[in-house]
Amino acid sequence: MQNEKINFLKTYLSLYIDHNTVLAGLQAAEPAYTILDVRNAPAAIKKDQIKGAIALPAKDLSDRLDELDKTKTYVVYDWTAGTTLGKVALLTLLSAGFQAFELSCALEGWKGMHLPIETI
Amino acid sequence: MQNEKINFLKTYLSLYIDHNTVLAGLQAAEPAYTILDVRNAPAAIKKDQIKGAIALPAKDLSDRLDELDKTKTYVVYDWTAGTTLGKVALLTLLSAGFQAFELSCALEGWKGMHLPIETI
Amino acid sequence: MQNEKINFLKTYLSLYIDHNTVLAGLQAAEPAYTILDVRNAPAAIKKDQIKGAIALPAKDLSDRLDELDKTKTYVVYDWTAGTTLGKVALLTLLSAGFQAFELSCALEGWKGMHLPIETI
Repeated sequence: MQNEKINFLKTYLSLYIDHNTVLAGLQAAEPAYTILDVRNAPAAIKKDQIKGAIALPAKDLSDRLDELDKTKTYVVYDWTAGTTLGKVALLTLLSAGFQAFELSCALEGWKGMHLPIETI
Repeated sequence: MQNEKINFLKTYLSLYIDHNTVLAGLQAAEPAYTILDVRNAPAAIKKDQIKGAIALPAKDLSDRLDELDKTKTYVVYDWTAGTTLGKVALLTLLSAGFQAFELSCALEGWKGMHLPIETI
Repeated sequence: MQNEKINFLKTYLSLYIDHNTVLAGLQAAEPAYTILDVRNAPAAIKKDQIKGAIALPAKDLSDRLDELDKTKTYVVYDWTAGTTLGKVALLTLLSAGFQAFELSCALEGWKGMHLPIETI
């Protein structure tokens, strides 16, 4: 059972990327990550987003995969960690052969840490 | 590793049903889902619930499975997505051979979307 | 698919321990659990913690495993259930051969239930 738990945790955690890693990657000369805001909401509801994110709602993702680049690594986020939308988007991206992670703690955690956002 | 991630996400997401699917199913002539409020709290604490839900606290679920119907599909929810009680209830239902899902984002998400609730 | 869901849920839930079980275990003559506060924050930010918890930030855990005792069972918690830090700490502990669980609903849930905390 201990091994099952360990394997489960390893796979679970391999889906995520934390904000420190993302921030460090974005500050590189060649940014290591492209952030996708996958919230299914109009800009008027969203109001702001992670600085530099591309809005690509999860509901449109399957139809817009050709806008993405297989040489990049994508980081998806939704409003909070409690939703399943980030994982829906992540499954779409991984299934299509993209490198992708879900942002730990989502937008809520990013804002809670007072990390860079921008008005939209 | 990519395949492991994909399989993990598929199984994880197969546990959930989102509020749009639930709402659409409830509006059918023959409602597609029966909603179970599995919160372990008295009505005075709960105050309200998803419209039409049946209160069946997770702590009583094992003893009250004979009240349920194997031809139906159940949707369980707890207060928030952060608790494990919905998954405890879901495991009990699936292990007993019922069709069941956990509501994505729980009651908190349902209320956040201003979907139908009722005072209890 | 039903079996896969059941196995997934069993493993997922086996990672967690709920506050009732923890509370009962702490009240035994020989406390059954040692609580580790794995938040990566200084005391001034944390302000309070679960009563009797030991502060052992997740970032320092790998380097401080020799302070722990393999005859004990550890319960780790972070701020909220939405973070992945509790699972990072749990993976470290289980991989090193310790008995450990993550506290369901984290500190947020513990406080929400008005369970014993202490100022730090």
